[in-house]
Amino acid sequence: MRLARFRAADGTVHRGELSDDDAELVADGETFDADAVDFLAPSDPSKIVCVGRNYADHADEMGNDVPNRPLLFLKPPNTVAAHGDTLTLPSGKKRIDHEAELAVVIGERAKDVAAADAMEYVEGFTCLNDVSNRDDQDREQNWVRGKAFDQSAPMGPVLATPEEVPADAFVRARVNGELRQDGSRDQFMFSVPDLLAEITTYMTLEPGDVVSTGTPAGVGPLDDGDSVEVEVEGVGTLRNDVRVP
Amino acid sequence: MRLARFRAADGTVHRGELSDDDAELVADGETFDADAVDFLAPSDPSKIVCVGRNYADHADEMGNDVPNRPLLFLKPPNTVAAHGDTLTLPSGKKRIDHEAELAVVIGERAKDVAAADAMEYVEGFTCLNDVSNRDDQDREQNWVRGKAFDQSAPMGPVLATPEEVPADAFVRARVNGELRQDGSRDQFMFSVPDLLAEITTYMTLEPGDVVSTGTPAGVGPLDDGDSVEVEVEGVGTLRNDVRVP
Repeated sequence: MRLARFRAADGTVHRGELSDDDAELVADGETFDADAVDFLAPSDPSKIVCVGRNYADHADEMGNDVPNRPLLFLKPPNTVAAHGDTLTLPSGKKRIDHEAELAVVIGERAKDVAAADAMEYVEGFTCLNDVSNRDDQDREQNWVRGKAFDQSAPMGPVLATPEEVPADAFVRARVNGELRQDGSRDQFMFSVPDLLAEITTYMTLEPGDVVSTGTPAGVGPLDDGDSVEVEVEGVGTLRNDVRVP
Repeated sequence: MRLARFRAADGTVHRGELSDDDAELVADGETFDADAVDFLAPSDPSKIVCVGRNYADHADEMGNDVPNRPLLFLKPPNTVAAHGDTLTLPSGKKRIDHEAELAVVIGERAKDVAAADAMEYVEGFTCLNDVSNRDDQDREQNWVRGKAFDQSAPMGPVLATPEEVPADAFVRARVNGELRQDGSRDQFMFSVPDLLAEITTYMTLEPGDVVSTGTPAGVGPLDDGDSVEVEVEGVGTLRNDVRVP
């Protein structure tokens, strides 16, 4: 099942199921044309916990070693954007990159969760674009200006329940239709259960919170006027236009 | 004016004014004995933006240079704790420190704010203890395990409106009654308006969000059974007991 939150043309907000052909949404006893609604982010996270260097090929392209435990960073709620939103990125930067990611949406409050039980706390998966301002990321201890600026975490278009997303689901980015990243969930250094066990050792995850699992090789710059897509097999395609003032 | 959020003995939640002698709270036409209520955090932040190395003497004691722009890091909502809460800290760590801080509570949504206008967006000040797990902080890129664990940001007891807090307000920590930190707002490397201008260049601050302004020299370890206090002149004293399982 693939669930979308959306605002209908009359302004009402719904959560419902997206049809297999992406054409229709069924919610609250009504059927909506998917092209006639505004998608909202699939959840309202109190925090997004992100993972860096979770694919060896991306760690390598950035000149980094693979860490011996997950490299974590945070994106607060101001970073959330939805499928279809135009992303207004910080101006005057030399390089702001796309990072295609498979993201986990939490279904139940989780603390001190064992890896073996971790999937019981997962509501589903979505696509997330970990938009990254390298100018600042490269010169700060904590990646706040670099990773936590407004609209730096578009996500969607839907939450796909776990059985929709294969163990080797592809994770892709396209810019203006051109394939830029093409990885797979089976390349993860740390699996979803291992990530949830590690994170919940320190932090309580709340329903709606998001854990984003890192990006494969092929990250690259976004410019004013670009259209960027993140596609995860079994979820669908998250699409955003980019504006740089 | 000093405003507290609190839960009365009958379970109802109120926001009201604390008397000058800290004995009584007046809210919703009633008077409450301050010793008979549970204080809540003075706001529900969507994020806490923290500043590192904002006092030269603390940067020096940690062996760090003073940065040429504010060092930022993030504490998500899971870190919030209230005055009077017992803090359950991560177990098995060699050193978890107190850090006494003056924190700013945002009153109005703020983005791209000029320093000259920044105080218009401030509702008031509170005390915050930036509890820091050095074992992990010292070996991670982003201070997530080190700074964003549950209950690592107790704050309160009140929100004091800006005129209550002098420009040279003292910022102190005591552990089991012994003075450990004793700094002053006039030692800041970056003033509150300068911090808000820098942060809102990148991030929208929402009402209730908190910006914590860094800690003076004298940070030190907390152990099971300790009582830790942060006092800011004009605000009052935030007190928490510490438990290490």
